[in-house]
Amino acid sequence: MKDLVGAMIFGQSGGPSSVINSSAAGVFIEALKHPDKITAVYGAAHGIKGILDEKFYDMGKEDIKELQLLKNTPSSALGSVRYKLKAAEVDDTDYKRLLEVFKKYNIRYFFYNGGNDSMDTCNKVSKYLQSVGYDCNVIGVPKTIDNDLWGTDHCPGYGSAAKYIATSIMELKLDATVYNTGMVCILEVMGRNAGWLTAAAQLATYKGLGADLIYLPETPFDIDEFVASVKKVCAANNDKCMVVVSEGIKTKEGKYVGEFVASSTDLFGHAQLGGVGAMLADIVKKETGIKVRAIEFSLLQRCAAHLASKTDVEEAFASGAYAVKAAIDGITDKMVILKRDETADGYVCAPALMDVALAANTEKKIPESWILPAGQGLTEEYVKYALPLIQGDSKAPLEDGLPRFAKLKKVFVK
Amino acid sequence: MKDLVGAMIFGQSGGPSSVINSSAAGVFIEALKHPDKITAVYGAAHGIKGILDEKFYDMGKEDIKELQLLKNTPSSALGSVRYKLKAAEVDDTDYKRLLEVFKKYNIRYFFYNGGNDSMDTCNKVSKYLQSVGYDCNVIGVPKTIDNDLWGTDHCPGYGSAAKYIATSIMELKLDATVYNTGMVCILEVMGRNAGWLTAAAQLATYKGLGADLIYLPETPFDIDEFVASVKKVCAANNDKCMVVVSEGIKTKEGKYVGEFVASSTDLFGHAQLGGVGAMLADIVKKETGIKVRAIEFSLLQRCAAHLASKTDVEEAFASGAYAVKAAIDGITDKMVILKRDETADGYVCAPALMDVALAANTEKKIPESWILPAGQGLTEEYVKYALPLIQGDSKAPLEDGLPRFAKLKKVFVK
Repeated sequence: MKDLVGAMIFGQSGGPSSVINSSAAGVFIEALKHPDKITAVYGAAHGIKGILDEKFYDMGKEDIKELQLLKNTPSSALGSVRYKLKAAEVDDTDYKRLLEVFKKYNIRYFFYNGGNDSMDTCNKVSKYLQSVGYDCNVIGVPKTIDNDLWGTDHCPGYGSAAKYIATSIMELKLDATVYNTGMVCILEVMGRNAGWLTAAAQLATYKGLGADLIYLPETPFDIDEFVASVKKVCAANNDKCMVVVSEGIKTKEGKYVGEFVASSTDLFGHAQLGGVGAMLADIVKKETGIKVRAIEFSLLQRCAAHLASKTDVEEAFASGAYAVKAAIDGITDKMVILKRDETADGYVCAPALMDVALAANTEKKIPESWILPAGQGLTEEYVKYALPLIQGDSKAPLEDGLPRFAKLKKVFVK
Repeated sequence: MKDLVGAMIFGQSGGPSSVINSSAAGVFIEALKHPDKITAVYGAAHGIKGILDEKFYDMGKEDIKELQLLKNTPSSALGSVRYKLKAAEVDDTDYKRLLEVFKKYNIRYFFYNGGNDSMDTCNKVSKYLQSVGYDCNVIGVPKTIDNDLWGTDHCPGYGSAAKYIATSIMELKLDATVYNTGMVCILEVMGRNAGWLTAAAQLATYKGLGADLIYLPETPFDIDEFVASVKKVCAANNDKCMVVVSEGIKTKEGKYVGEFVASSTDLFGHAQLGGVGAMLADIVKKETGIKVRAIEFSLLQRCAAHLASKTDVEEAFASGAYAVKAAIDGITDKMVILKRDETADGYVCAPALMDVALAANTEKKIPESWILPAGQGLTEEYVKYALPLIQGDSKAPLEDGLPRFAKLKKVFVK
């Protein structure tokens, strides 16, 4: 517990979301309230890379109105990055450089917003600064549409993506069944290893306008079972079938089904997926002769801020503000989590703290007991868990009928 | 001008939209107010096919609350169809059957909701009934996200699709430029021959978050010019470029660029397009080595009722109600149009009538003078035209955080 006085820096990392800027708004607006402890408020351009390159913005120069508009502005306003720090024992070049920059600007508060990989960065930086005796309070702020961060009830970003996915499935279900001719519709959802995003399809099912089949990455994917299931649904349903499939479905040997179509890898070394829906569409077309359409939600599912969940927007904001409050109270080396009160009547959830090391690189998967056999979706337990996360609307004000997103000045610190 | 007493039937045809059911709500709610003239209110299952098959619903049996919810329910609640009537001179089988059904149920009012092809159906039915001396007032209700119906200022359905496209481009623009690495994003928009939908990208440009390049089907597409333009944008912009492209772009020889990837044809004999974005993405990847992502708005752009334009929803409803009012006033053989008062201060637009024959099979393209040279988008004239059409929000009430769409009983008429 160290009471510090100095500058703070905040960075955004990993894939953006509809509400990652809401956390940024929470961080900045809270930080600006404490000039006694926080002497300057910086935003790193492109996360950790911006610190290494000494490229950061003076957030104190922004209009407060624009910072408030960040709450409903999608993507990462400061720019994001996928940059994995090596272990300090292997190569401490980056760490030395970070320390140099932190010292130069007297940075005593470091907040990093992201998922598993970003919490790993956060943890490594925190541990290094401790090892060299540089006082800096480090707090991770959770974010990932994938909802796969360990230790938190759910992640800011998930509720809005889930709301987008469930709403779009309901709308597509009405659209894709409109003709008196057959149609198989295959919807591809993001999510490498955890099926949380794909699971959101179950919410549409709960409302009576769901897909016929849902394939999660948690369950080995069998192409013959898949084709047989589609044929069965079509036979019972005038050749109409809607399938939701995760980009991350794997064969029982553990190979990504999508790997047959993609081979490039992103900068973290993960296989670059996508296109598995189109591949399955080809197979279904050949096997059934029925018209097939593959639709990939692609980036839309993570940036559709016009359809954000109010609960999610507010929790994201609260998580950011909470991180700052904790840090100025002298806390370090933690990640903000969302803690649901399971004993409460209705949904009660508030920020709390957990050791950041516990979140680093650990993936939270869907409980096995919530998953029904291949294609059949999820149990009511999932619906009970997820439904509170998609409640309410919160979006940018309209200007000319279109969203008025935040416009930051982005004044570089010299 | 014939004052008639009898049943009415309404059908939905062609590709659905976010607001085609709003017109249905307008038709049904208005029709139910006039039991003196309209003795029964029928909805045809799958358009003209439902009449031929004697499959239609008794809309008088529906709860008025559910009919009102139709205003914000996407797709075609009665089911749609793509069925082209042969010329009566060539084959009058269908016409004789229609006449038989009309006589059996004493149908004296026929309303048909759709685009060019549907207005052709409407016109043919009207002319045939006249030729055999069967009194029936026939009115077409316009609908197409493509906005290519001749004679009307714009079509119900267009404003909402345009709002979806412009909003999504703004959101994607923020998302796709988030990393400090290069990214070319190619967005594919619907629209066979008229570029109205693709033009909506210009609205995002107007708001400062637009694509770098916009390719309409009206301008011959040159692949070399395209690659050169993308390279130029990338060179000036840290290897980042966003392109919006119509599925209907054609070479200077008039061949669909998308035809190289698709060969099947839909039931009207049009080439089945889609996939041109993915094809261009491949080319750009090979030519530049920059990471490329193709995103197809696909069916999402025509069913995203959660992002409908209030202006559009209300005009669609008013068009349906106006058709009924005209028909009970004895008018026939017309299509409802939307007429903008160009002399008014601000946007003033109201339903009016036009001979349905004029709309049949005629495509309205974007005025040439509004189109800038390849890739550069549209003039301010287009923005002035389109902006009023996307104003305001109108969406279904939320239930459990998800849209509560209309639930019709769909009681078949015996």
